[in-house]
Amino acid sequence: MHRCREGFVAIIAEWVAVDWGTSNLRAWGLDSGGAVVFENTSPKGMGKLQREEFPTALAEVLAGVSAANDGALDVLICGMAGARQGWLEAPYLEAPTDLSGLIAGAVRPAMPDGRFVPAILPGVCQKNGNDNVMRGEETQLLGLASLRPGFSGVVCMPGTHSKWAQLSGTKIDHFSTAITGEMFEVLRTHSVLRHSLAGDLDGPARADGFAAGAAAGLERPEQLLGQLFQVRAGSLLSGRTPDWCAGFLSGLLIGTEIGSNRHLIGEAPVPLIGSAPLCALYAQVLGMIGAKGETQDATEVVLAGLKAARGFAA
Amino acid sequence: MHRCREGFVAIIAEWVAVDWGTSNLRAWGLDSGGAVVFENTSPKGMGKLQREEFPTALAEVLAGVSAANDGALDVLICGMAGARQGWLEAPYLEAPTDLSGLIAGAVRPAMPDGRFVPAILPGVCQKNGNDNVMRGEETQLLGLASLRPGFSGVVCMPGTHSKWAQLSGTKIDHFSTAITGEMFEVLRTHSVLRHSLAGDLDGPARADGFAAGAAAGLERPEQLLGQLFQVRAGSLLSGRTPDWCAGFLSGLLIGTEIGSNRHLIGEAPVPLIGSAPLCALYAQVLGMIGAKGETQDATEVVLAGLKAARGFAA
Repeated sequence: MHRCREGFVAIIAEWVAVDWGTSNLRAWGLDSGGAVVFENTSPKGMGKLQREEFPTALAEVLAGVSAANDGALDVLICGMAGARQGWLEAPYLEAPTDLSGLIAGAVRPAMPDGRFVPAILPGVCQKNGNDNVMRGEETQLLGLASLRPGFSGVVCMPGTHSKWAQLSGTKIDHFSTAITGEMFEVLRTHSVLRHSLAGDLDGPARADGFAAGAAAGLERPEQLLGQLFQVRAGSLLSGRTPDWCAGFLSGLLIGTEIGSNRHLIGEAPVPLIGSAPLCALYAQVLGMIGAKGETQDATEVVLAGLKAARGFAA
Repeated sequence: MHRCREGFVAIIAEWVAVDWGTSNLRAWGLDSGGAVVFENTSPKGMGKLQREEFPTALAEVLAGVSAANDGALDVLICGMAGARQGWLEAPYLEAPTDLSGLIAGAVRPAMPDGRFVPAILPGVCQKNGNDNVMRGEETQLLGLASLRPGFSGVVCMPGTHSKWAQLSGTKIDHFSTAITGEMFEVLRTHSVLRHSLAGDLDGPARADGFAAGAAAGLERPEQLLGQLFQVRAGSLLSGRTPDWCAGFLSGLLIGTEIGSNRHLIGEAPVPLIGSAPLCALYAQVLGMIGAKGETQDATEVVLAGLKAARGFAA
């Protein structure tokens, strides 16, 4: 695998896989066998780009990459580049749907020259009174299905907006979104709880606070609006330190999220797709109800999904 | 009843009742029979004052008010003036407690001259793993008990931080705080939901959105983190307008709050103490589960509470 730097010889790839999120852009060049021959990242996420800036951002991240025999290089993209505010809107497939059909819904934005031929995969939506949307996660789910053929069950994708999806092979039956990560941030920054969260949030009491909050959320997920105020009351009455309060808030939110999805969790381990430290917290809370979380490598999963969308087996 | 203006003759009062909140300060002069002879308000709430500015703020709002025979005038204060960041901290009574004992916990801040003799009533806290605090609401609860002798049941006090208290006569057994009003504000202003809430929030679809959100919250209070995202998905997928989304968010939060307190609600109407428009929304949602809300006049209740704390019957 090569990272592209000035002075390197050109990299020859068969096609390029791109995960284009809100904050970042990540690209892999693949050979005809599906091996990664090139990898590059850029901070030019969808959220930072005007529509007309996408072609240049893509060309930059792929500088030095060429197709064999100087032909055009297919670039398969998943994620927020296909949002309404992105490069070109890729309409949603509606769940329940088979994710192996993602490629049929791809849209093809124009490039100023013919060197790259980009296609953006669609997201998945859900309607009938249970409105929901995902963009990017559907490709990770297809990747998981590809890496673990025959898997059936709930998949948890922790993050700013956590997704819980019910997967049967490559079919997504139903999904929901919990705004857990964003809730932590807005409460920490803008609510009355900020007074209890001013200081070192990563001190030694954080783990205890996390365990207490997770237990409270798991036990009474319907009491979130009430239990949140206990962060403030705990610092006023019981001298709880900022690190304990931050742990409690984090645990309470994750415990509430997992508690509200408890009916979906069976005997089998729950695949967790997300950042490794966050997945570890989710696995800890799953353990508190006798369930098991199994962290998946997020990069491996998205790459497997882009390969599967293009028709490669994992 | 007189409002104090320059050029008026001095008002003679037996004592003064003050509700000193975070945002405002409200004062009533009372005669020996408990009738209001003077009323004044000031924007100098606790949140805007340094400790040393409280005496002047009080003297300003009471300009023109004197005791009979030029003696010192007792001023009985409830609310956030007694907070740690307020004028002088009034330690909490711990629930369960009899609110008729509030006066015994009052603290007496100093005034630069002897014209006024202020006393600040304590708040109420709750410990033993269920940490909670109130300041000001305890006086309203005492007022309700005074206006409705023999009342026993749950009382709902909607607001930025809604309180639900179980009252038996003048005894408060247990209470909780839901950060419902603040949650609406931080999500409207700082979360991804703000994109769905940009525009006219008071349009004609608000009522429909409110009813839909309230039904969703009542039915599944444990799903708040998930149902919040439906505000965003509803505007992306179903063309929901900002007024509908604002109504849905408001209804969802109030429905979730009421749904999570459903086990406390009996056959008798639930007294609602708060702003009249907000109490009307709570009464509407209570009606959706076959319960009844009974809006109390918040001013009447706090004044009755200050009178009762001083030993007057309502």
